Amino acid sequence: MPTILGQNQYGKAENRVVKITRDGATHHIKDLNVSVALSGDMDEVHYSGSNANVLPTDTTKNTVFAFAKEYGIESAEQFGIHLARHFVTSQEPIHQARIRIEEYSWERIETSDANSKFIGADEVKHSFVRKGQETRLTQITYDGEKWEVVSGLKDLVVMNSTNSEFWGYVKDKYTTLQEAYDRILATQVSSRWRFNWTDDEQKMPNWEKSYEQTRKHMLQAFAETYSLSLQQTLYQMGARIINNRSEIDEVRFSLPNKHHFLVDLEPFGLKNDNEVYFAADRPYGLIEATILRDGCEARIPVDMTNL
Amino acid sequence: MPTILGQNQYGKAENRVVKITRDGATHHIKDLNVSVALSGDMDEVHYSGSNANVLPTDTTKNTVFAFAKEYGIESAEQFGIHLARHFVTSQEPIHQARIRIEEYSWERIETSDANSKFIGADEVKHSFVRKGQETRLTQITYDGEKWEVVSGLKDLVVMNSTNSEFWGYVKDKYTTLQEAYDRILATQVSSRWRFNWTDDEQKMPNWEKSYEQTRKHMLQAFAETYSLSLQQTLYQMGARIINNRSEIDEVRFSLPNKHHFLVDLEPFGLKNDNEVYFAADRPYGLIEATILRDGCEARIPVDMTNL
Amino acid sequence: MPTILGQNQYGKAENRVVKITRDGATHHIKDLNVSVALSGDMDEVHYSGSNANVLPTDTTKNTVFAFAKEYGIESAEQFGIHLARHFVTSQEPIHQARIRIEEYSWERIETSDANSKFIGADEVKHSFVRKGQETRLTQITYDGEKWEVVSGLKDLVVMNSTNSEFWGYVKDKYTTLQEAYDRILATQVSSRWRFNWTDDEQKMPNWEKSYEQTRKHMLQAFAETYSLSLQQTLYQMGARIINNRSEIDEVRFSLPNKHHFLVDLEPFGLKNDNEVYFAADRPYGLIEATILRDGCEARIPVDMTNL
Amino acid sequence: MPTILGQNQYGKAENRVVKITRDGATHHIKDLNVSVALSGDMDEVHYSGSNANVLPTDTTKNTVFAFAKEYGIESAEQFGIHLARHFVTSQEPIHQARIRIEEYSWERIETSDANSKFIGADEVKHSFVRKGQETRLTQITYDGEKWEVVSGLKDLVVMNSTNSEFWGYVKDKYTTLQEAYDRILATQVSSRWRFNWTDDEQKMPNWEKSYEQTRKHMLQAFAETYSLSLQQTLYQMGARIINNRSEIDEVRFSLPNKHHFLVDLEPFGLKNDNEVYFAADRPYGLIEATILRDGCEARIPVDMTNL
Repeated sequence: MPTILGQNQYGKAENRVVKITRDGATHHIKDLNVSVALSGDMDEVHYSGSNANVLPTDTTKNTVFAFAKEYGIESAEQFGIHLARHFVTSQEPIHQARIRIEEYSWERIETSDANSKFIGADEVKHSFVRKGQETRLTQITYDGEKWEVVSGLKDLVVMNSTNSEFWGYVKDKYTTLQEAYDRILATQVSSRWRFNWTDDEQKMPNWEKSYEQTRKHMLQAFAETYSLSLQQTLYQMGARIINNRSEIDEVRFSLPNKHHFLVDLEPFGLKNDNEVYFAADRPYGLIEATILRDGCEARIPVDMTNL
Repeated sequence: MPTILGQNQYGKAENRVVKITRDGATHHIKDLNVSVALSGDMDEVHYSGSNANVLPTDTTKNTVFAFAKEYGIESAEQFGIHLARHFVTSQEPIHQARIRIEEYSWERIETSDANSKFIGADEVKHSFVRKGQETRLTQITYDGEKWEVVSGLKDLVVMNSTNSEFWGYVKDKYTTLQEAYDRILATQVSSRWRFNWTDDEQKMPNWEKSYEQTRKHMLQAFAETYSLSLQQTLYQMGARIINNRSEIDEVRFSLPNKHHFLVDLEPFGLKNDNEVYFAADRPYGLIEATILRDGCEARIPVDMTNL
Repeated sequence: MPTILGQNQYGKAENRVVKITRDGATHHIKDLNVSVALSGDMDEVHYSGSNANVLPTDTTKNTVFAFAKEYGIESAEQFGIHLARHFVTSQEPIHQARIRIEEYSWERIETSDANSKFIGADEVKHSFVRKGQETRLTQITYDGEKWEVVSGLKDLVVMNSTNSEFWGYVKDKYTTLQEAYDRILATQVSSRWRFNWTDDEQKMPNWEKSYEQTRKHMLQAFAETYSLSLQQTLYQMGARIINNRSEIDEVRFSLPNKHHFLVDLEPFGLKNDNEVYFAADRPYGLIEATILRDGCEARIPVDMTNL
Repeated sequence: MPTILGQNQYGKAENRVVKITRDGATHHIKDLNVSVALSGDMDEVHYSGSNANVLPTDTTKNTVFAFAKEYGIESAEQFGIHLARHFVTSQEPIHQARIRIEEYSWERIETSDANSKFIGADEVKHSFVRKGQETRLTQITYDGEKWEVVSGLKDLVVMNSTNSEFWGYVKDKYTTLQEAYDRILATQVSSRWRFNWTDDEQKMPNWEKSYEQTRKHMLQAFAETYSLSLQQTLYQMGARIINNRSEIDEVRFSLPNKHHFLVDLEPFGLKNDNEVYFAADRPYGLIEATILRDGCEARIPVDMTNL
């Protein structure tokens, strides 16, 4: 046979599970989008269509919902670990499981103020508004021995309205760009970070606290860096995380440079003193890099944008 | 000629203007998406292609950016009023202007905590993260005499995890739905409200405060209503606004019922005590209605979803 | 009570129904997205939450799927007519039904050529590829007496690479645009057209043929018009339809001017002789108008883009 | 310093270039979305913000537009090869260039039929309608010595309305799926294929013909395979390409199983004889695999969906 099968994986993608936990009248939400990808001894289903080794994708979906009840959802990472372990240890033909999770965050609707007309209004504790900022991400991979946990976020839009320059670059025959000494720097952060927890014997990180702190360090580094290039800012964001979070060894960023062009108002007799900008869509600069703890191996795939 | 021209309008849509205001080291952002639609004496351009009465859409774009400098952006509503007045009063063939604005809100990145490594870190006052929740909307219409201001929001996602029932409905031969006595009620609010300010002689509302309070009343009514149907909740949301905001005479809602289906876990020997839900995409219920101050006329078009 | 209920409607939106018809080994597809909106005697559900007059949206969904079996799907229009008639005539509190349908078209995968390796390959007649061009639309409204049928399309992207000019326009202090004597004219057509069939006594149009012919006339008018403005082209597209299709009395267009800017290559020592263009996203001109058969009333809402 | 820089790249993404070629009155279009990613000796810009080695992303944008004039756009692949060679050979610090291109196809608007009212209408040869089916893709990577060309497509939606079964699978405690002996098989094809052209000394493939033939073989294999699992169909699609196109050594697919669920019409007294289906959105099965020419190395990254 002149063709052979290479890497392959399958499972149910985008299982939208919402878990409500009731602590008396106070409710808590976890809102996840869970995707399962399994691989192992799957040659026959590709070559002949025999499903003898195939746990249906429908079953992987059922498992996601059942586990939300059986184990609860303490964190996206912990939930993914339960799922990955189950698939690899319960099905002989499955040698590896990869669980990807998106998490959407919610905050409470405040109802206790004086304007509330609700009769006998105590604070309502079962009402939520979706936060709608970044989407939190995690990916759990397990092969029966080692764990790889890569968490991250996407769609976090940030802007510095000053403290950004860009000059001193290469100029070739196609270069027309003017140097800038005070520009807006804005990006939509997509980031992934890899934990050095790989083994059931190690102490597991506090996933919730780790996320909150990593996000904070990233934002503060963005705000506090006086930027000579988006590459420099990117590096500072990654280094700040590595330096502050010992559980993380590697960070990858994909940062579109969301251009805000100063509008030329001179034709109208007006001076634009870094006040009025046109927010452009396409094209955009795209800056991507990995920052590593010294001595550690890079394992996060470099491609977060795809062909 | 057997065909005639009916209503028509034209202009530049989606002008993305960002205005930075510097108050010393403290910066402020306004981030708008402005669409201009003009109408008037425009038969000839349709019939013969004569542009003699046509102010180019490119000019309307330039005007948006120039006005951000000339007038600043105090609020989306005030900015739209400046623009609409300009087009109608400066161009004889233009009899009516409609300015639509989307506004994206930003909050400051906090940098003052103890973890911040910035040397000599005072709080940074030029760094922002996009809030990413609802999009604020306004539409200003001016015909040279009267103003119509319709503001609103879209994409505000809310959920009550209890205090919602649905029963006692009509059952015909196609009805299979089971009655529900404790369900999740979730929706993605799209709302528009019309102000009773119509005349330059009237005192203008405080647009920023009005928006903030209207949004708050809407959210609180959603949270505090014990719901027997999404229609009932919708009505309470509108009535709460009309009763608390004297500047508003009419509210329209388009509320998709974002179904969260309780997952049947019995096949797995598990009991689902209102804990685990499947968040469905399509189809969805769609509930739409207008709430009016008694004696006022309905003027907001009923269709917010389009053919 | 100081607030009252205005116009309201409800139903299940975006029911995705696919109907396969088997004519021996030859299969046929209809692929629709059906949205139901009902209105009538619905005050109580808004005021008190009583669902006594409410046919559940879930039932309207079931009806869509059941009718695909009971009546088949001859055309989107005919299918919508069956549904609208059913809801209005079978439920006393429902006084009006509006059915909106999107239709996705498919074409057959060709398998009969010499390269096909299929053993004993006759042409396969059950394999399809989605056409992926415009989405066909229709909206059926019925109040128990009169019908209104508005059909249309969206997302049909067209371009003329010459025979378009733009000059002779108004110039004010904000005008910087240069006149153009040979430009690209491109747009993404969104159009709706209203039929003069309103009564069961009238002969019903051939909906499938009408759509095909209306689309063809629209495209040909776009191609054949030497354009001095997009408004002129729009008018010709509408007039061509009215003049050729006696079943249609009114056409509405919403045409974004998808700007293709000639790139300035002079800084690189190159001459751009109407060859290389930058296809821009935002902002864009937006040209909207209604064309009517003389003597007919305009009934299609002017707003196809929404606040 | 405890942190180090890993893999990094930068450039201007999504340059939307449209090239018109005039052959007398007959015009031709190429419509591309070009993304440039450069890497090399870029440590300093990350560590210190020095841009001394950085060719601005704005310059890479200018180069795309200038090359459309200088070299024309014979095919997306050939255009990418010109660009990649330029960046690597003209800038010493740049060691590798990766050019990604999306191509949108257009077809002519037909105007020659009898219904055309155009006075003296010859066929119009400058009017186009966007085809709107799949998006064609290519990625060119060059390091100064070797080329890697990976082409592909996305968003090609296909369906077989019969000749698909699914049974004989593993059943565990979470399995509830019923076996199916005649189901709809539908997917939205995302595929990439790698050419064995790697060297300027080799004869270059005919990129346009290769795309057309590869697409045809893929579609025919989908149509002609009697399917016992989507994995089996996927393998047949890849094998058909490898067996028929000697210029291609590797194919990767990411195939969502777009579920069409047979609707249960029994509650309404109706029998659903494989006629009426509900087209579901989420969750969906996701089947991914690589097919290789025997003896060849797999080089296409396995992840086409991303974390």
